[in-house]
Amino acid sequence: MSTIALTPVGRVESELIDRAMAPKQGHEGAPAAWIAFEPHLAAALDGMRVGDRLILLTWFDRADRTTLKVHPRSNPATPLQGVFVTRSPDRPNPIGLHPVEVLAIEGTRVRVSDLEALDGTPVLDVKPVI
Amino acid sequence: MSTIALTPVGRVESELIDRAMAPKQGHEGAPAAWIAFEPHLAAALDGMRVGDRLILLTWFDRADRTTLKVHPRSNPATPLQGVFVTRSPDRPNPIGLHPVEVLAIEGTRVRVSDLEALDGTPVLDVKPVI
Repeated sequence: MSTIALTPVGRVESELIDRAMAPKQGHEGAPAAWIAFEPHLAAALDGMRVGDRLILLTWFDRADRTTLKVHPRSNPATPLQGVFVTRSPDRPNPIGLHPVEVLAIEGTRVRVSDLEALDGTPVLDVKPVI
Repeated sequence: MSTIALTPVGRVESELIDRAMAPKQGHEGAPAAWIAFEPHLAAALDGMRVGDRLILLTWFDRADRTTLKVHPRSNPATPLQGVFVTRSPDRPNPIGLHPVEVLAIEGTRVRVSDLEALDGTPVLDVKPVI
């Protein structure tokens, strides 16, 4: 199939710098982090408020895109499963989904809660929780 | 920022053929649809079962990627808002999030409920609901 080209809309700034430090899911003790949005996209943030609940979509740029089966939660005692029935970051298109809450907004920088994405992770999109 | 290249993992086969036909959200009367996954990714589906609840990630290939503000739900009476606080398909990286239920599995073809994506829409990823 033909290739799709994405340009990140921003980047994660976090104290998490490698996968060994990161919890498996945001609600498992992940820290708050800043999202630095591209300044030319400021209009797309209009109406965002502290306290909003958002779904952040990121690109796991350190994932292995050739992996098709994994042991869920990296536990070798669990049977191998297809990556489409797990939340493994290793998958053909490693897009991360992160439910977060807006903690602060400073221009095009937005601080969010509970983000397990690593420092430098590209941000692809942001949507409100429905 | 540098560009990210994605290759779709499959494609939507639906009776919805244009945006005027599609409901705004899957739970607003969207039909069931087939997802035709790439045959070489069959292993990534291992363990999927009828009744599973999944989040399907699609690429709204007919969206306008230059739009930064919209009237929510296309209602001109509502104030313009940044696309990152709306679910508009028009946005810089038009990735769709679709909560669906698996209705049938036939090899690498998976039938899912309540999908508002149009026929031919590329599928980027699939994850279980947590």
